[in-house]
Amino acid sequence: MQGLMQDRPLDVAAVMRRVEQLFGHKRVVTATVGGEVVATWQQVVARARRLAAALDLLEIPPQARVGTFGWNSQRHVELYLAVPSSGRVLHTLNHRLYAEELVHIVTDAADDVLFVDRSLLPRVWPLIDDFGTVRRVVVMDDGGAEELPSDPRVVGYEELLGRVTEPAPPAVVDERDAASLCYTSGTTGRPKGVLYSHRSIVLHALMLLGVDNFAISERDVVMPIVPMFHVNAWGLPYAAMLAGADLVLPGPAMTPEALLGRMARHRVTFSAAVPTIWRGMEPLLGDADLASLRMIVCGGSAVPDALSRSWQEKAGIPLTNAWGMTETSPVVTCSRLATAHDDLDADARRTLLGTPGPPLPLAEIRIADDDGTGIGELQAAGPTIAAGYFGADPGKSSFTPDGWLRTGDVGTLDQYGYLRIVDRTKDLVKSGGEWISSVALENEIMAHPDVHEAAVIAVADDRWGERPLACVVPAPGRTLDDQDLRDHLAGRVASWWIPEQIWILPEIPKTATGKFSKTALRALAAGRDER
Amino acid sequence: MQGLMQDRPLDVAAVMRRVEQLFGHKRVVTATVGGEVVATWQQVVARARRLAAALDLLEIPPQARVGTFGWNSQRHVELYLAVPSSGRVLHTLNHRLYAEELVHIVTDAADDVLFVDRSLLPRVWPLIDDFGTVRRVVVMDDGGAEELPSDPRVVGYEELLGRVTEPAPPAVVDERDAASLCYTSGTTGRPKGVLYSHRSIVLHALMLLGVDNFAISERDVVMPIVPMFHVNAWGLPYAAMLAGADLVLPGPAMTPEALLGRMARHRVTFSAAVPTIWRGMEPLLGDADLASLRMIVCGGSAVPDALSRSWQEKAGIPLTNAWGMTETSPVVTCSRLATAHDDLDADARRTLLGTPGPPLPLAEIRIADDDGTGIGELQAAGPTIAAGYFGADPGKSSFTPDGWLRTGDVGTLDQYGYLRIVDRTKDLVKSGGEWISSVALENEIMAHPDVHEAAVIAVADDRWGERPLACVVPAPGRTLDDQDLRDHLAGRVASWWIPEQIWILPEIPKTATGKFSKTALRALAAGRDER
Repeated sequence: MQGLMQDRPLDVAAVMRRVEQLFGHKRVVTATVGGEVVATWQQVVARARRLAAALDLLEIPPQARVGTFGWNSQRHVELYLAVPSSGRVLHTLNHRLYAEELVHIVTDAADDVLFVDRSLLPRVWPLIDDFGTVRRVVVMDDGGAEELPSDPRVVGYEELLGRVTEPAPPAVVDERDAASLCYTSGTTGRPKGVLYSHRSIVLHALMLLGVDNFAISERDVVMPIVPMFHVNAWGLPYAAMLAGADLVLPGPAMTPEALLGRMARHRVTFSAAVPTIWRGMEPLLGDADLASLRMIVCGGSAVPDALSRSWQEKAGIPLTNAWGMTETSPVVTCSRLATAHDDLDADARRTLLGTPGPPLPLAEIRIADDDGTGIGELQAAGPTIAAGYFGADPGKSSFTPDGWLRTGDVGTLDQYGYLRIVDRTKDLVKSGGEWISSVALENEIMAHPDVHEAAVIAVADDRWGERPLACVVPAPGRTLDDQDLRDHLAGRVASWWIPEQIWILPEIPKTATGKFSKTALRALAAGRDER
Repeated sequence: MQGLMQDRPLDVAAVMRRVEQLFGHKRVVTATVGGEVVATWQQVVARARRLAAALDLLEIPPQARVGTFGWNSQRHVELYLAVPSSGRVLHTLNHRLYAEELVHIVTDAADDVLFVDRSLLPRVWPLIDDFGTVRRVVVMDDGGAEELPSDPRVVGYEELLGRVTEPAPPAVVDERDAASLCYTSGTTGRPKGVLYSHRSIVLHALMLLGVDNFAISERDVVMPIVPMFHVNAWGLPYAAMLAGADLVLPGPAMTPEALLGRMARHRVTFSAAVPTIWRGMEPLLGDADLASLRMIVCGGSAVPDALSRSWQEKAGIPLTNAWGMTETSPVVTCSRLATAHDDLDADARRTLLGTPGPPLPLAEIRIADDDGTGIGELQAAGPTIAAGYFGADPGKSSFTPDGWLRTGDVGTLDQYGYLRIVDRTKDLVKSGGEWISSVALENEIMAHPDVHEAAVIAVADDRWGERPLACVVPAPGRTLDDQDLRDHLAGRVASWWIPEQIWILPEIPKTATGKFSKTALRALAAGRDER
């Protein structure tokens, strides 16, 4: 016997109707190369409806992939609305990837049309003939001075919108239809495509509105620094629309100075970014008035406690950790201070906020604790978690027989269901039969005042099997001595965790999503070993 | 092309797992006839899993209806979990209904087994042989002294749980399967059954967690005064579980003194009730320490502004209005102060909070404005809104051709999508070709300091078609003069709204859900007319 509730789909069109009907007066601010553009949500939705009709003019078939190479911008938001609501699939692409990876991803996704920010044309246009399926390139003018290719495949975004005579009605979709596509950053093997449904996008946005999670409300001014080209900017544009928040989009203006200035000027209340971004801003704190901030989320890697402490001391607000991955929409956990933590002191509260925290409603996590230590692989399930991969590689090894996602992270859960990530499975250092957490070791090294960044990898060792190698970048204007670092670690970690090998490097190589590239470090270490 | 997300159902079992795994240490407090019982959520869920096995012992078939006659109590919460998660349908019954209505509803629902609070046995047991389909009656001991019938159909709740050897695994359900059933209060015609799905229950609970809505969090102590026998106590038990809040359940201890004492003692942060309840407590305010309250919701009828002002002055917190009905799970709108209201003064803010407010995420409303006045029938759509009725009466006239629910309320929407209810369609007074809102007139009459309650109905008038008749109850210890009331209304409403006929009554007849029974008043008026 079925319930007698209306069978209304959870779809992007419903989000679009909501922001239009209730929050049309609220604002979307976009930074351009040289300035700023302000629009109301009413204008954004009206343009998105015209854009949907423009996709018809381009003869993009239902369910075809529409690729984007874009900064965080109003036009990117318009694509977030128009592409899924018209029955196509939005495929956001990371312009920082290598050419070879981009060609692989565009080919695997079989993108039909690409939308490209003008300032990003030099990254994309040289590959256009390698993108076998791409018929058209729509250029979005972000203030960049880059020359437009003289090619019949190229059309301007505004010109295209100008051709539309009337907006398109939304397509009829099933909530389980594909809405958007994003590839993993491919730290292990080739990037794999994750295909989000309308249902997962709407549920994920709704989960973020919860007062114990991101608590996005109509009163918020949300600034997603996390890129719209990766995992839907952690779902923030859709959450902002559902709540009716203002959105401030940093566009190509990604310097720490530009980000802080924009944050202060627009009285931003909520922002989210990876540690590298927060670290880049940290030396400038104190000059900017950030009193409007109520929550800043740091994800993508562990939160360095020293960094969070700096933010707390200089800006009055610590970093809150959230955990997720491309396969998980992405937010699965978000930290918070619960009633059980009322007796913690300020330092312990900040440290707790720097851990992943408990799962959001509808998301479930478990630890595959094979040896009874309480430590094991983190697995995740729920309607916002992937069941497989798009395209050539189904990635069956990434799922358990009962359908849970194997995250590749090793973690623990405390009595209140708060997650701690011990390490990536493949980054653990097994030394003398015991595990060393590279994440924990990095965090302790980064607590040294003269350290800017640190990454730890395992290197082969005849006696212990593996030993940790620490790659350390000094803070600007500082020098580092490896014995001084070892003295710093004594008492902070077990003595056998202290690395014999410490490399002082000018920088840590990063992946295209800004994470430490341990693959690159391992290659570097292997190279040195061979010398 | 479908998205590649996990096909995990939105079901009550997921809510049960969540509260068990993350919030097992949080509490459920239940008042009994003479005391109070405290349990942890872990204990409640463990008992619910045993109860599910007990339903197997009673050989209740899948999808069969399990009726409950219960106060707000821990055992009722256990039924909220065990019945749907084991694949049966929870049918909550209003013990205040007339015998004839109860027999109709139990028969229409074909209830298989009834769970009855001991103190409610005198209302239920005399009808047992009229309830044709009921095989067993399980008695829940709420401290009542009522004698247990000596009958083989009767079994005690704890005795039944004692027979269970091991808890039942949850049934496999589709999220669109029926989970619970509630009948409308039947102010128009016979009560009709609304069949909630697992999906609608979970989505509704998730919507309530939003920071702009009820904002239920782990830090809350939620006291649902609204009955668990009607529309799932506005979804509060499920929302509390999803968030991990403490729950304080007033049981049969429903006097204003008992409610206020419990609120103060348990540091309740959130509560919800109909106006009659808030009015009953109001004279006692000032004695109780209610500083812990962050939000009190008043629904089921319009919020009398004078009442809200009293709460604000004496308890420091105004009443917040929410709008919904049995057919809508029930919460569709909830008021709040948005950025657009920042310039309002304190009085205007309180008045705004006393209106229904904007729709929750996933809920959509519109006004069927047939004559271009901006006023028309309120219609609602969304995955938590009914598409039809259970049983004999499909109620087709309650739905539009495009599937929206016709609410029977007349309202307006402002530029920010904030709903105002002008009246029930059938309660509008049409006088000289113009509409008079009975709700607005009642509100102005109740603003008189000597008025306790007021209800306005239409009476036939030879000259004007209809005229308003005001039925007014004086505040305790006060007397009322009808000319004084008319003087009070002058300047507050248009002169032609002022009723010629004002009846001073000792009380206003109420429906079983505590609303003014205008049907009864109309019968009274018709009787007088005939004399």
